[in-house]
Amino acid sequence: MGSSAEAPRVGIAGLGMIGGSLALVLRETGFAAKILAWDPDQAALRAGLAQGVIDEAADSLESLAADVDLLVLAAPTLACDDLLRRVLKAPRMPRYVTDVASVKAPLCRVLDEVDSEIAARVIPGHPIAGSERSGVTAADGSLFRDHRVILTPRAETAAEAIDVVTSMWTAAGARVSTMDIDEHDAVLAATSHLPHVLAYALVDALAQSPTRDDIFRFAAGGFRDFTRIASSDPVMWRDISLANGPALLAVLTDFEAHLAELRRAIEAGDGAALENTFRAAKAARDGYLARQAAELKSVEV
Amino acid sequence: MGSSAEAPRVGIAGLGMIGGSLALVLRETGFAAKILAWDPDQAALRAGLAQGVIDEAADSLESLAADVDLLVLAAPTLACDDLLRRVLKAPRMPRYVTDVASVKAPLCRVLDEVDSEIAARVIPGHPIAGSERSGVTAADGSLFRDHRVILTPRAETAAEAIDVVTSMWTAAGARVSTMDIDEHDAVLAATSHLPHVLAYALVDALAQSPTRDDIFRFAAGGFRDFTRIASSDPVMWRDISLANGPALLAVLTDFEAHLAELRRAIEAGDGAALENTFRAAKAARDGYLARQAAELKSVEV
Repeated sequence: MGSSAEAPRVGIAGLGMIGGSLALVLRETGFAAKILAWDPDQAALRAGLAQGVIDEAADSLESLAADVDLLVLAAPTLACDDLLRRVLKAPRMPRYVTDVASVKAPLCRVLDEVDSEIAARVIPGHPIAGSERSGVTAADGSLFRDHRVILTPRAETAAEAIDVVTSMWTAAGARVSTMDIDEHDAVLAATSHLPHVLAYALVDALAQSPTRDDIFRFAAGGFRDFTRIASSDPVMWRDISLANGPALLAVLTDFEAHLAELRRAIEAGDGAALENTFRAAKAARDGYLARQAAELKSVEV
Repeated sequence: MGSSAEAPRVGIAGLGMIGGSLALVLRETGFAAKILAWDPDQAALRAGLAQGVIDEAADSLESLAADVDLLVLAAPTLACDDLLRRVLKAPRMPRYVTDVASVKAPLCRVLDEVDSEIAARVIPGHPIAGSERSGVTAADGSLFRDHRVILTPRAETAAEAIDVVTSMWTAAGARVSTMDIDEHDAVLAATSHLPHVLAYALVDALAQSPTRDDIFRFAAGGFRDFTRIASSDPVMWRDISLANGPALLAVLTDFEAHLAELRRAIEAGDGAALENTFRAAKAARDGYLARQAAELKSVEV
C-alpha cells in the first residue's frame, strides 16, 4: 500500500464463514490487490483456494503478517486477542490490523501492553452480521451488505488506520460507525448477548419441564421467533458470554430488576402497573422500528 | 340443530378480529346455516353486516343466546367469564357454548357454579392464532388455517358438545386437540405468556438505559425477532397476565432458577457449564423444530 490510491494486499487470519465472506467481497469489488489467508485448519485453506475465495494461503500467521498491508483477524471471539498478541510480536507487522470479534475489551487489554506507535496501527472492529451456517464453504459475498460495522478507535489509533478499514467495510457494502469501546461492549451486551442468554435459559427451563412434550408441540409463532437465537452456536456464545462477562452481568442485573417489578405486579394483581410497563415497552419498540425504517429509507435515497 | 346433519345457527358474542374471522370462514364453508352476532359496540355490528361477515345482528347477548344453536364467546380473555355467567343465567341458553379465551381457569370457575347438566353444554376452547391487527375490519377467513385449537373438556362435558365444536374448528381449517384445563394454562404460560413478559421486561429495561439511543440503533436481527412480541396489545397482555397469574408465576420461578445458574456460570467464568446449557437448549429447540416439520408433513400427506 505504497500510496493511498494503490489497492492493498489483504490478509485474513481465520478462514471461516466471516473471513471467507469478507475475502469474497473484497476480491469481487477489487478493493484488494490480493487476498492471502492463514488458518490452523489446512482444509479450510484448501477449500478457500479451490473455491476462489482467496488468492494465496500462508504457512503461518507470522508469514501472513509479513506479507500483507492490511490484516483482518477473523477468528472466534476468544481467539482474536491471542492472534493479535502474536501479530504484535511478529518479525514484521502489517501496516494496519483490524479484527471482527464480538467483544472489544479483551483486544484492548492486549493493546495496553504495547507501545502506542504500534497500537496506533490496530483498529478494533465488529461487523454485526452472521449466519447460522459456518465454515468457509458458507462464505457469502453479500453477508455484510447493509449491515452495520462498529469500529472502536482508541486515543492513539491512527486516523489513516480508521480510514483504510472504513473503506474496506464500505467496499463490502456495510455501514460503518465508530463507538467507544466500553459503550460497544455495553450496547452489544444489551442487544445481543443478554437476549441470547435469556433465550437459552428459557428453552433450557422448558426442555426440563414435565410437560415438555406439550410445550414444544403447542408452541406458537411468537415462541418460535423468541427462541430462534437459542439455536446459535453454543461454543461461540460460551466465548462471548465469558469475554463480555462484566457488561453482560450489568445489563442482566438491570433486566432482573425490571422483571422483578412485573412479578410483583402479577402477584399483586396490579393491572395498571402491568399495562403501563407493557405500553412503554411497545411504544419504545414501535418507535425504534419507525426510526430505523426512516433511516434505511434515507440511506436508500 | 334438530339433527346432526342440519347446519347450526351460530352466534358470535364479541365481533372483533377473532370473532369476525371465525364468522367469515363459517359462512364461506357453509358450516353455519346463519351467523348472528352481538357486540356492545354497535359500530362493529354495522361493519360486520356491511362487509358480509355476519347475517344478522342481535340486540343483546341474551337475545343472541336465545336464537342460536352454538354460541361462541369471542370476547377478550377477562370478559369471557362474565359473558358466560350471563349466558348461563339467560332465559334461553343455546344447545352448545364455547369460547376463545387464552386462559381457561376463570371460565371453569364459572362452570363450577352451575348444575352439571348445564355445564355439560359448555366446552372451553382456545384457538392459538392471532394477528397484530384488531377489529372486525381485520377479519380474515384464513386466520385459523393450519393453526391449533385446544379444547379443554371437563368431566361433565357432553361428548356431543366436543364433537360439534371440533367440527366447527375443523371447518375453519384448524387442527383440534384436547387438553386438561390446568395443563392448558401451564403450557400456554410457558410458551406464550412468559415469553411476552420477558420481552416486555427486556425492552422496558433497555428503553430506560442511558445508552438507549445506541441500543436501539445497533439492535441486530436477533433482537428484532426476540422483541417482536413486545409490540403486542398491552391491554390484552395485561388481562392474560392477570387471568393466568398462578401458572405464569410458576413457570417464571422455574425460568429464574435457570437464569440464576447461567448468571453464576458467567460470574465464575465457568465455560463448561455455559456450553452444556447452551448445547442442551439448542438440541431441544432443533429437535422440536424437526419433529414439528415432520408432523406438518404428515398432515399435508
